[in-house]
Amino acid sequence: MRTLPVPAQGLLALLCLFSFESVQAGKVLVLPVDGSHWLSMKILVEELSNRGHEMVVLVPETSILIKKSGKYSTKTYPVSFTHDDLAENLKEIQNSALEKAPKLTDIVVNFRNLLQFLTMQSKTCEGLLYNEPLMKSLREMGFDAMLTDPFLPCGTIIADSFSIPAVYFLRLIPCRLDEAAAQCPSPPSFMPRYSSGFTDKMTFPQRLVNTLLTVVEGFLCRSMYESADELASKYLQKETTYAELLGHGAVWLLRYDFAFEFPRPQMPNMVQIGGINCVKRAPLTKELEEFVNGSGEHGFVVFTLGSMVSQLPEAKAREFFEAFRQIPQRVLWRYTGPVPENAPKNVKLMKWLPQNDLLGHPKVRAFVTHGGSHGIYEGICNGVPMVMLPLFGDQGDNAQRLVSRGVAESLTIYDVTSEKLLVALKKVINDKSYKEKMMKLSAIHRDRPIEPLDLAVFWTEFVMRHKGAEHLRPAAHDLNWIQYHSLDVIGFLLLILLTVIFVTVKSCMFCFRKCFKKSQKKKKA
Amino acid sequence: MRTLPVPAQGLLALLCLFSFESVQAGKVLVLPVDGSHWLSMKILVEELSNRGHEMVVLVPETSILIKKSGKYSTKTYPVSFTHDDLAENLKEIQNSALEKAPKLTDIVVNFRNLLQFLTMQSKTCEGLLYNEPLMKSLREMGFDAMLTDPFLPCGTIIADSFSIPAVYFLRLIPCRLDEAAAQCPSPPSFMPRYSSGFTDKMTFPQRLVNTLLTVVEGFLCRSMYESADELASKYLQKETTYAELLGHGAVWLLRYDFAFEFPRPQMPNMVQIGGINCVKRAPLTKELEEFVNGSGEHGFVVFTLGSMVSQLPEAKAREFFEAFRQIPQRVLWRYTGPVPENAPKNVKLMKWLPQNDLLGHPKVRAFVTHGGSHGIYEGICNGVPMVMLPLFGDQGDNAQRLVSRGVAESLTIYDVTSEKLLVALKKVINDKSYKEKMMKLSAIHRDRPIEPLDLAVFWTEFVMRHKGAEHLRPAAHDLNWIQYHSLDVIGFLLLILLTVIFVTVKSCMFCFRKCFKKSQKKKKA
Repeated sequence: MRTLPVPAQGLLALLCLFSFESVQAGKVLVLPVDGSHWLSMKILVEELSNRGHEMVVLVPETSILIKKSGKYSTKTYPVSFTHDDLAENLKEIQNSALEKAPKLTDIVVNFRNLLQFLTMQSKTCEGLLYNEPLMKSLREMGFDAMLTDPFLPCGTIIADSFSIPAVYFLRLIPCRLDEAAAQCPSPPSFMPRYSSGFTDKMTFPQRLVNTLLTVVEGFLCRSMYESADELASKYLQKETTYAELLGHGAVWLLRYDFAFEFPRPQMPNMVQIGGINCVKRAPLTKELEEFVNGSGEHGFVVFTLGSMVSQLPEAKAREFFEAFRQIPQRVLWRYTGPVPENAPKNVKLMKWLPQNDLLGHPKVRAFVTHGGSHGIYEGICNGVPMVMLPLFGDQGDNAQRLVSRGVAESLTIYDVTSEKLLVALKKVINDKSYKEKMMKLSAIHRDRPIEPLDLAVFWTEFVMRHKGAEHLRPAAHDLNWIQYHSLDVIGFLLLILLTVIFVTVKSCMFCFRKCFKKSQKKKKA
Repeated sequence: MRTLPVPAQGLLALLCLFSFESVQAGKVLVLPVDGSHWLSMKILVEELSNRGHEMVVLVPETSILIKKSGKYSTKTYPVSFTHDDLAENLKEIQNSALEKAPKLTDIVVNFRNLLQFLTMQSKTCEGLLYNEPLMKSLREMGFDAMLTDPFLPCGTIIADSFSIPAVYFLRLIPCRLDEAAAQCPSPPSFMPRYSSGFTDKMTFPQRLVNTLLTVVEGFLCRSMYESADELASKYLQKETTYAELLGHGAVWLLRYDFAFEFPRPQMPNMVQIGGINCVKRAPLTKELEEFVNGSGEHGFVVFTLGSMVSQLPEAKAREFFEAFRQIPQRVLWRYTGPVPENAPKNVKLMKWLPQNDLLGHPKVRAFVTHGGSHGIYEGICNGVPMVMLPLFGDQGDNAQRLVSRGVAESLTIYDVTSEKLLVALKKVINDKSYKEKMMKLSAIHRDRPIEPLDLAVFWTEFVMRHKGAEHLRPAAHDLNWIQYHSLDVIGFLLLILLTVIFVTVKSCMFCFRKCFKKSQKKKKA
């Protein structure tokens, strides 16, 4: 294959110019989930705002990352928890991830924590829904669409109440409520369940466990969103469930693609926008540029545990310092915890670091990360092999996907040692296969007909233009579980079959008996 | 919603410019299916050629529509049938569609015809495969990809033999071999089967029939592609089936979208390019422009029965002439058959008509069509209500989809009368709901982030750049039918359950007997 002149490359792209319908400026109500979830949704909100749409973001009075901005307007609503409550909650989650092995008891504790969190959020949602003046003013604004993260149910309930189409923006819902609500098939025979640790190629025992997990998921979903079901039925004054409401969503903007996720069935209203957060690299500050350039041929390593975790217990931190002391690379670490006296000189600690800009630098050699979906997409996008230390949520699954592709090593943070870290770091830096496979993955990820942000913008605007996306709604929504799987049809066919067999056998026996009696009579005669 | 200034609309589209990877010129081997199938594939072949790729089209010596062209090179291969054989075959199909009602015997006859056709094609394919000099020269050209219509198996077999990735271009394979090979779920509870006449909303009896049809499909597929299975195993010298080979295809370019088809699950390597044939309208010739403009406020009707049928038996034709005489619209009819003496003056007969240019004319009121997938997409694209006269193949299903959307009326051609035609024509022209619904459908169809042709080009080039699309291949390919549906897991779980119940019952009975004996002994004592 020979390279075409550059103008020819633009030809196809220029055709795009004519493919967008006349764009209209609309009003979008945005109800995000706080924390890292907001970081990528914000990119879409700001882009829609740049394109002339009026974006109104609902912000809880006590928020972590959702802030006011000149790019969108905000409406604040009171919540029943304080910043201290939030910090306490975060610390608990962090500690349980850092200190303990994921034993069965911990899973129960984690689930209880999640339930508590969701029940608390449900109360917050109730406060918002019954905030009559706010809701009245919002209703009167006449929004064209609701943009929401369906991990929490409030946006979906408001969309139903306002009779406006909902656009969902998410990575996933842990109990797979998203796929169930979208009527998306997800056979347990090759789609590993949340936190199972399996890949898409499973042995019989793994498939057995995966099938059982599928059953458990159903119960989990019911418990997790029980309060949401009750709130929705009460507020909307109709017998409904959160899953049913979710199923009316117009479009699902999903923060993954098949460079990262295992290939799986999709529904027509599912749109993949994985890598939406991987923007173009900006130049580093002079200080940072000097530091990373000073690393010489060995290059440097980027280390963060995400937006929520910037500290480590002293003993744990020591293991990291010790490992970093023994590598020739320089290390940039987002860390605000206590620093030992003899901290190695090749490590630079920062309160915050420009992660994507660093990962895009030609001298970067590895990315040590907790495996949040934003970070890993920045890693994939820039082609950087990773050492992963999953903490909670989908991070374990994310790590496992990249490990199965041979582009990362994964360690458990509760028992990490400097030796283990060193082995993993040396592997991903010195074994060239990690970098090669990562470059291939990166090339596949970046080779797409349209950028994820443009796609997200297009579909949000599509929903506004056509007041939903009814033509993408499968008729499966009208079927119950038995009908969907044709169990009633199969039952009916079995019944016919059994009846035919029964009648045939009976007839045969009847004939046989008749003949037998006759021959006996004859004999007697 | 207010309209944005036009420059803002271009912003998003211009971003497309940067989304295409550096394009390389490659070599693509093309093995089309002759007839109307070729018409849209040709568009992609020409576009790829325009972009600098070397396109080599394999053309049977006796071909209907595949011709030499300056835009691509051709290699001709001998076949065992003549133009007369083809004409005879066509006439038979045409007659059976025009003259007889689709009774059960006809279905058997049609299936026998199809089998004969496929067996004949399989022989043609064998001739091509064992044409050593041609195959050797092709192999030596070092193609990057194979573009083929998988309705016939030859392209897929050659792709496997040459070890090059295959890109499929199709509307569907009648027995749903395409979905089976792509591992795409298609629940019979809401996905109507080929020629069933059902929509995606079925009653219990309809679902029952649809389920039975699903079983029949399996047998049909096996019969239809039995000769292909044998040929593939023999030529590739390995035990294989056509379905298995098909499953290794890189990308499926599917000529439908959800403005037309019922929403359904999709696999990651399925790309929708419905409407790829609906190019921009060119101006009409002076003569045609005068004729259609002379129709005044009433406008005109376009009537064709596709590229393969330009004649009708005299009695049948008379019904059409009589119906057209009674409408105020002018009619443009692609017809080369006998003309009655008193043919109405509002009808203009033509050997060939510029269908898309006419359908894009503002004065067009209705489109009378056989319901081929090319014609209906030109109808949808231009927003023209239709009267449909399905003849064979997928045309019945196509008609039924548009009727269910309220944008068309469907008639059976074997018993069509001027009265029935008149009623249908008046309905779609005078009842405004047809036009309104069609305009909505058209708006949805045309509102897409990227044009179908660009998408087809992108994915063909993607496959060339990355030597396939392995990351889109689901792990389901490694499972057999029992494993895919987890029947082994369910069986194992049932076995455990039954064992537990059995042991429990036995233990209880044992205890009960022990206790009972004791109490009896006591009584006796």
